[in-house]
Amino acid sequence: MRTLWDLLLFLVTLTLAILGPLEIVYRIKGPIFVFYSGVFLTAIFLIDMFLSFRTAYYDRGELIEDLAQIRRHYLRRWFVIDFISLFPFDLISGPIVVNVAGKTIDIAPILRLVRLVRLLHLRELVNRWRHADFLNPSMMRLGILVLWMLMMAHWAACGWIVLGNIKPEYNAAENYLRAFYWVITTFATIGYGDITPLNIPQIAYTVVIEIIGVGMFGYMIGNIASLLANLDIARSKYQEKINRLNLYLEYRDIPIALRQKLRHYYRYMWESRRGYDENLILKDLPSALQKELAMHIHAEVIEKVPIFKGASDAFIKEIVMKLSPAMFTPGDYIFREGEVGHNMYFISRGSVEILSEKSNQVYATIGEGGYFGEIALLMAQPRNASVRAVEYCDLYTLDKNSFQVVLSEFPQFAQQVKKMARERMHHEPKKSAQRGRRGR
Amino acid sequence: MRTLWDLLLFLVTLTLAILGPLEIVYRIKGPIFVFYSGVFLTAIFLIDMFLSFRTAYYDRGELIEDLAQIRRHYLRRWFVIDFISLFPFDLISGPIVVNVAGKTIDIAPILRLVRLVRLLHLRELVNRWRHADFLNPSMMRLGILVLWMLMMAHWAACGWIVLGNIKPEYNAAENYLRAFYWVITTFATIGYGDITPLNIPQIAYTVVIEIIGVGMFGYMIGNIASLLANLDIARSKYQEKINRLNLYLEYRDIPIALRQKLRHYYRYMWESRRGYDENLILKDLPSALQKELAMHIHAEVIEKVPIFKGASDAFIKEIVMKLSPAMFTPGDYIFREGEVGHNMYFISRGSVEILSEKSNQVYATIGEGGYFGEIALLMAQPRNASVRAVEYCDLYTLDKNSFQVVLSEFPQFAQQVKKMARERMHHEPKKSAQRGRRGR
Amino acid sequence: MRTLWDLLLFLVTLTLAILGPLEIVYRIKGPIFVFYSGVFLTAIFLIDMFLSFRTAYYDRGELIEDLAQIRRHYLRRWFVIDFISLFPFDLISGPIVVNVAGKTIDIAPILRLVRLVRLLHLRELVNRWRHADFLNPSMMRLGILVLWMLMMAHWAACGWIVLGNIKPEYNAAENYLRAFYWVITTFATIGYGDITPLNIPQIAYTVVIEIIGVGMFGYMIGNIASLLANLDIARSKYQEKINRLNLYLEYRDIPIALRQKLRHYYRYMWESRRGYDENLILKDLPSALQKELAMHIHAEVIEKVPIFKGASDAFIKEIVMKLSPAMFTPGDYIFREGEVGHNMYFISRGSVEILSEKSNQVYATIGEGGYFGEIALLMAQPRNASVRAVEYCDLYTLDKNSFQVVLSEFPQFAQQVKKMARERMHHEPKKSAQRGRRGR
Amino acid sequence: MRTLWDLLLFLVTLTLAILGPLEIVYRIKGPIFVFYSGVFLTAIFLIDMFLSFRTAYYDRGELIEDLAQIRRHYLRRWFVIDFISLFPFDLISGPIVVNVAGKTIDIAPILRLVRLVRLLHLRELVNRWRHADFLNPSMMRLGILVLWMLMMAHWAACGWIVLGNIKPEYNAAENYLRAFYWVITTFATIGYGDITPLNIPQIAYTVVIEIIGVGMFGYMIGNIASLLANLDIARSKYQEKINRLNLYLEYRDIPIALRQKLRHYYRYMWESRRGYDENLILKDLPSALQKELAMHIHAEVIEKVPIFKGASDAFIKEIVMKLSPAMFTPGDYIFREGEVGHNMYFISRGSVEILSEKSNQVYATIGEGGYFGEIALLMAQPRNASVRAVEYCDLYTLDKNSFQVVLSEFPQFAQQVKKMARERMHHEPKKSAQRGRRGR
Repeated sequence: MRTLWDLLLFLVTLTLAILGPLEIVYRIKGPIFVFYSGVFLTAIFLIDMFLSFRTAYYDRGELIEDLAQIRRHYLRRWFVIDFISLFPFDLISGPIVVNVAGKTIDIAPILRLVRLVRLLHLRELVNRWRHADFLNPSMMRLGILVLWMLMMAHWAACGWIVLGNIKPEYNAAENYLRAFYWVITTFATIGYGDITPLNIPQIAYTVVIEIIGVGMFGYMIGNIASLLANLDIARSKYQEKINRLNLYLEYRDIPIALRQKLRHYYRYMWESRRGYDENLILKDLPSALQKELAMHIHAEVIEKVPIFKGASDAFIKEIVMKLSPAMFTPGDYIFREGEVGHNMYFISRGSVEILSEKSNQVYATIGEGGYFGEIALLMAQPRNASVRAVEYCDLYTLDKNSFQVVLSEFPQFAQQVKKMARERMHHEPKKSAQRGRRGR
Repeated sequence: MRTLWDLLLFLVTLTLAILGPLEIVYRIKGPIFVFYSGVFLTAIFLIDMFLSFRTAYYDRGELIEDLAQIRRHYLRRWFVIDFISLFPFDLISGPIVVNVAGKTIDIAPILRLVRLVRLLHLRELVNRWRHADFLNPSMMRLGILVLWMLMMAHWAACGWIVLGNIKPEYNAAENYLRAFYWVITTFATIGYGDITPLNIPQIAYTVVIEIIGVGMFGYMIGNIASLLANLDIARSKYQEKINRLNLYLEYRDIPIALRQKLRHYYRYMWESRRGYDENLILKDLPSALQKELAMHIHAEVIEKVPIFKGASDAFIKEIVMKLSPAMFTPGDYIFREGEVGHNMYFISRGSVEILSEKSNQVYATIGEGGYFGEIALLMAQPRNASVRAVEYCDLYTLDKNSFQVVLSEFPQFAQQVKKMARERMHHEPKKSAQRGRRGR
Repeated sequence: MRTLWDLLLFLVTLTLAILGPLEIVYRIKGPIFVFYSGVFLTAIFLIDMFLSFRTAYYDRGELIEDLAQIRRHYLRRWFVIDFISLFPFDLISGPIVVNVAGKTIDIAPILRLVRLVRLLHLRELVNRWRHADFLNPSMMRLGILVLWMLMMAHWAACGWIVLGNIKPEYNAAENYLRAFYWVITTFATIGYGDITPLNIPQIAYTVVIEIIGVGMFGYMIGNIASLLANLDIARSKYQEKINRLNLYLEYRDIPIALRQKLRHYYRYMWESRRGYDENLILKDLPSALQKELAMHIHAEVIEKVPIFKGASDAFIKEIVMKLSPAMFTPGDYIFREGEVGHNMYFISRGSVEILSEKSNQVYATIGEGGYFGEIALLMAQPRNASVRAVEYCDLYTLDKNSFQVVLSEFPQFAQQVKKMARERMHHEPKKSAQRGRRGR
Repeated sequence: MRTLWDLLLFLVTLTLAILGPLEIVYRIKGPIFVFYSGVFLTAIFLIDMFLSFRTAYYDRGELIEDLAQIRRHYLRRWFVIDFISLFPFDLISGPIVVNVAGKTIDIAPILRLVRLVRLLHLRELVNRWRHADFLNPSMMRLGILVLWMLMMAHWAACGWIVLGNIKPEYNAAENYLRAFYWVITTFATIGYGDITPLNIPQIAYTVVIEIIGVGMFGYMIGNIASLLANLDIARSKYQEKINRLNLYLEYRDIPIALRQKLRHYYRYMWESRRGYDENLILKDLPSALQKELAMHIHAEVIEKVPIFKGASDAFIKEIVMKLSPAMFTPGDYIFREGEVGHNMYFISRGSVEILSEKSNQVYATIGEGGYFGEIALLMAQPRNASVRAVEYCDLYTLDKNSFQVVLSEFPQFAQQVKKMARERMHHEPKKSAQRGRRGR
C-alpha cells in the first residue's frame, strides 16, 4: 500500500517536473485542464501530508513508530516544503505584473514553478526503494541516473526555447525537439554547430549549459560505466586471474599439458561456482547468520551423505561449521597408501577410486554422498589404500580434532561410523566392489 | 587574524590575476583608478613582506619560531619574488617602446603583468588552509579545481581577444563573453564551429589551446568525478557489498526467507553505523589516541550499564579496550542452555530474553544497559538458560580471560558482579520477571 | 570439427548482420543471388538445428552428454529462435502491403530482418571460445568489442540512409561511406557539422543515436583502455613499486650508493622474474596442482643439484614443497662464522664464497647446484665459516625442522649428505679449493 | 659513452620520422642537402651496426658479455632491419615509375620511407633508459607519451596534405599548420567543422583517423591522468584517509576537542613523514637489504643516543632490527607509576617528563637521545614514576625479550645500562633535574 502511494507520488512529481517548465515556455493556459490538474495536485499533496503525520520512519536502523516523535520529525524536516507546495498557483490565469527597475515582469509563470519544491522529496522516495528486495540496486541507480540526465536535458531545452530559439515554420513539439536535440548535442560534446547561440543572452546561457552540462554528463557516463562494470564483477575478476595466470605460465615456460590442466581447473571453478569467495562473504556476517547461511550452502552435500540422514539439527549445525572444502582434479591422489592420515572426506560431487598402488587393483569407486578416510582416524594407523580422483571432485574434509569432537559429542554418529569402518576393513580388500555410496 | 590576512592576500592576488590580463587586452588606462590600485597593491605587498619576516612556519611538523631561522627561510624562498611584485608597473602610463628586429613593440603591458609572479604564492596559501579544521578538504579541493579551470579559461579568452577576435558591433564585455564562450566550447571539446580561427596566428593559438586545454579539462573532469565519488565512499562501498551478496545469493539459490534476513541485516548495519570499519580507523592511531577515541565511541554503552556507574576512570579505560562488539539478528540464540560459557555480554542496544528451551518459559527480558552470561564464568558451570535476541542487538562481549583480569584488578567491580550473580541464581528461575536493566 | 562449424556459423551470421540492413536500405533485389543465399542460409541453419540436438553442453562445469537432457535443454532455450530463423523471408520478391491508419506500408523489408534473431546466438558462440586455450582472452575481448562497435556504426549508418541522407551525385557505396563517416563523427563526439539532420525525423533519429551511441562509445573506449592496461599488469605494478620507492628514498635522504643498490635489486628482480608473486598464484590452486606446478618451476634447481639426481619422485615432491626461496645481492653475508645455524642452502643461480673473516681467507667458491650450511644442522654446532654472495644469488633454503623430517623419511639422502659433510669438515679448512658444484 | 651514442641515435631516428613524411608530402628535392643527409644516415647506421656486434645485453637480469652469444642475438633480432635501413634511398633523385593496373605510380617517395623501419629500435632505446637512475620513470613515460601523440598527429597531418587539402594562398608551412590544426581538432574530438573532408578519399581517410586517433587520444589522456595522479600518491592516500576519518568523526559525533587532536595527529604524521608505510617498503626487500636500509633510516636516532656511541657495528645492526617505533601526542602518558613494565624507550624526537602523579612533582624532562623505562626491566619491579609526552614524541621501544637478548649478547652495553640505572635510582627522586640527554 505505502509503496503504491509512493509510486503515485513519484509519478505525480515527475509529471510536474516535466510539464511545469513546458507550461511556462509555451504559455499554455488551457484553463479547464490546468484548473483540474491544480486541484488534483493540491488534493494529492494534502493527503500525503496527512499520511506523513502517521507514517513510521527509520532512524539509525530503528523503526520509530511513536506518533509524537513522527510529528516532530515531520514538522522539522518536510512540513514547510509540503505546505508551500499545497498552494495551487497553477490556477492563476492572468498575469501578475511586478514593476522592477522600470520594467514590468509577469511573475505568474515563476509562481507556477513554486510547486517544484516537491522535487526535493524525490531523493527520499528513491532512498526508501533502495532497500526494497525486489529491485536490483545497481539497475535502479542506473535508471535514476538516466532519468536525471533526461530531466536536466529537458530543463535545459526549455530554457533554450525561452531564450527565443524558435523556428516559426515548426510547431511547438518540433521546436521542442530541436531544442532537445541542441541540448543533447551539447551535453555529449558533439557540437555539430548547426544550432548555435546568436545573441549575448544565448551565448551566456550556452556557457552555463556547457560548464554544468558537460561536467554532469561526464560524471554520469563514468557512473554508468562503473555500474555496468559492476554488473559482472565476478566475471571480470575471473578474467583478470586467468590473464595473470596466462602471462605467468608463458613467462615460466610451463609445459603445454600442465598449462591446459591449470586452465581447465579454472574453467571448472568458474562454471561450477563463478569464482565467488564464500569465506569472504561468510566472514562479513555475525556468527548466527554465518551458521544459517552455511547450512543452506552445504545442505546439498549433507542430504547426499547417508550417515547424516536423520541426524539431529544440532548435529548438522555443528558439523557444517567444521567441514572445509577441498578440490581435486582428475588423476590427483587424495592420499596414498602408508601415509599418516589427518582427515576424513565426504564427497559432494565427482567420484574417487580406492586402489592399491602395489597391485594396481581398484577396490571400489565411490561417488556423490560417499565418504572415506575414517579408518586411519579411528584406528590411528597409516592409510591402508590410496585414493585417486576419477573426475573433478568437490570434497569436504573433517580434520582429526574436529572428528574427535564430533564423535564424543554425538555418540550415535560415532557408533554408525565405527560399525561401517569395521565392515569395510574386513570385506573390502578382498573384492573390487563398484558400489557407489560407499567409502573408506 | 593571520587567516583573515591570508584571505585578503588571496582575494587581492585573485583580482590581480583576473584584471591584469583584461587591462592589457582592452588597454584601459583609467589613470586615477590604476594609480590608486597600483599604490594599494604595493602597500599590501609591502605589509605582507614585513609580516613574512616574523611569521613562524612549519618544517616537517615542527613549528619554527626562531626569528633568525624565519628570516633565512623567507630570504631563501620568497624574498626575490615578493620584491619584484612590489614595483608598481601599473603606474606606467605611456608606452615603453623597444626596438626588436626593426619592429617597435610597446612592452608596457608586459611589464604590468610582472606582478602576476604573486600567483606563485597561491599554492602556499591554499596549502595552509588544507589543514584548517573548519573546511572539508575534498570540498576545498573541488573549489580550487573549479577556480583554476575558470582562471585558465579567462586567460585563454584574453589571449583570443588579443589575436583580434573582436566583433565591432559588440562592446568590450560582450566581446569578452564571446571569447570566453569560444574557450569553454573548445575546452569541453564541443567545438560548435561558429567561431573558428581565421588566420595563421589564430590557428597556431588554437592548436596550443586545444592541446593544453583539452588535456587539462579531461584531467579536471576526472579529478572532480573522483572527488564526488569520494564524498560518499561509505555508501558506494556498501552498495558494492550488497551487489556482490545479491549476485551470490542468486547464484546459490538461497531461499527467499534467508535472503531477506541477510539483506535486512545489511540494511540495519548501514542505517545504524554506515558500514564504517571502526577497527581499521582505530588501528591507524597510536595506542594513547586509540584509547581516547574508544572511550568516546563506547561512552554510550558504558553510561547505560549500571554496574559501571561510578567506576574509576582507570577501570573504564581498561575495560573499554577489552570489549569486542557482536551483533545478533532477531531470533538468533546468543547461547543455549548446557553450553560451556566463554563470554559475558553487555547490551548496548536492543533486548534479549532469557528462557528455558525445555519448559519454553521466558524468565526475563533484558534491555539496554543490562548484562548477562556472568554466572557461567564465575561458577565455571555450563549455561543454566538459553538467551535469544528479541530484536537487532548490539552486544559487547568480554571473554573469560579478560573477565578474570578485570575481576582481579578491580576488586570493587568483582564484588558487585558476584553479589548480583548470587541474587540471580536464587531468584530468577522461579519467576518470569520483565524488569529491564537486569541480566543473567 | 565443432570449432570449424562454429566459425562457419559465426561468419554466416555476421554476413547476415552486415548485408541484411544494406539490402533493405538499397532495396537490392538481385533475384538469383538472393534466392540462392536465402536457400543457403536455410540449409545451414537446418543443419545447425540437427547438430544442436546432439551436441553435449556444459552445465556448472559438467559436460552433459545425455541425449534426452540435451534435447530438453535445446527445446527450452534455442529452438523457437532457430525455428523462426529458418523461414527464407529473403525469397519474398514483391512488396507485402499492409494498411495501417490509412497508409500503406511495405512490410517485406522488415520480414527480411527477421533472420537477424540469429544474432542472439553470437554471445553463446563467443562464450564457447572464451575458454579456448589458443586464444588470449583479453585480445579476444578487444576484438569482439571493436567488432560490436563497427556493427553498431554500420546499423546506425543504414538507418541514416533510410531517412533520406543521400546525395544524388554519389553512388550507393559513396553514400554509405558518407553515412558511416557521419556516424563515426557523431559516436566519437567530434561532430564536424558538415552533415547535420535537416528535418524532424532526422533530428529525432540523431538524438537517439547521440544518446545511445555516445554512452556506448565511451563505455567501449573505457573498456579498451582497461584491457590495454591489463595486457601489461606486471610492468605497471613494477613501475608503481619503483615510483613509491623513489619517492621514499628521496624523502628519507638515503645516500646515493644505497639508492642505487636498491634500484639495481628491483631491476634484477624485474628482469629475472617480471615481479610475479609466485606464492599468490600457487595459493590459489588446490594442493595437488600446487605440487605439480612447483615441481616444474623448481625443476631447474633440482636438476642442477647433484645430490638430488636419481632421487625418487616422491622425495623430490616432498622436498620441493619444503624449500623456500631467498635472494641475496652481491656482497651480502648469508651467514657469519659463529652464528647459530637454522638453515641449509641450495644455490639455484649465482655463486657464493666460503670464507674465514678472521684470516680473510676464501676457502671455496660454490656455484649453481651447490649446497652449503648443512654441517651446522647435522652437528648442532655454530657456523664454522662465513658465506658471502659474490653476485646476485637465488638460493633455496631448507629449515632445520624440514631438514630433520627429510633426513628421517629418506635415509638414502641422509647418508649422502652426512658422507659429504664429513669429507668437507676434514678437508676444506686446509685448502682454498675453487671447485664449483661443492658446498658447505 | 654508450648513453650518448644512444641519445644521438634517438635524435637521428626522430628527425628521420619527422622529416621523412614531410619530404614526400612537399616533394622537396634539395639535392645537395638530401645527398649529405643520406650519406650521413648510412654512416651513422653502419657504425651502430658494428657497435651492436660488440655490446653486451641483458638476459633475464644477467649481463651477457660473450661475443659469440651477442652476435647470434643481434643477427636473430635486429640485423635484417638494420641492414635494410642502410640503403640510402634518399639519394634517388628521379622518379621510379611502376606500372600498376594501367596507372603509373612513382614509388621513389615510398622507397624513401623504408628507412623508417629504424623506428622499431625506439622501443628498445627507451627501455634501456627506463632503468637509468637519473630519470624519474613516471616523468619519462609522460614525455614519451606526449612525443608519440605529437608524432602520430604529425603523420596524420602529412597524410591530410597528401590528399589535397592545400590552400593555394598559404605557403607550405602555413598549410602544414592548417593540417596539423585539423588533426588536433579531430583527435581532441572538438571538430569545429571549418575544415572537413570534401571528397570520397578524404572522407575515408577521416573515418580511419577518427577511429584510430580518438581511441588513441582517449587512451593517452587516461594514461597521462593516471601518471599525474601517481606523481603524488602519498598525498592522495593521505587525503583519502583524512576524508574517511572526517566522515567517521562526524557520523559518530566525536567532540570537537578530540576531533582536533586526531586531525593534528594526522597533520603531524603527514608533515613529519609524508605517511609512508616503512614496514611495507622494508618487507619487500631481502633481509640483507632490509638491515642496510633500516641502518640508514634509524642512523639519526642511534647517533643521538649517547650509550650507543662507540658501540660495535654488529651491536648496532642487531639492535636496529629489534627497535619498533611508537608515537605519542602531547599530554599522552607513555606509562604510569605502578604499572608492570614491558618496554624500554629511546627518544628520537620530542621530549617527555618524568613525574610523580601523587605529589604532582616533575623529576626530569628528557629530550632527544634520552632513554627511559630500563629500571623496571632490570629490577623486575613496577614502574616507579609516570612518564608523559610534552610534545609530539617519536620513540623507539625495545621489548623485554629483545632487551634480555641484547644484554646477554653485548655485555659492555649491559654494564653501562646497569650503571646508569643504579645511579638514577639513588639520585633522581630527590631532585627535579632538568638536564636533557638523561632518562629513566
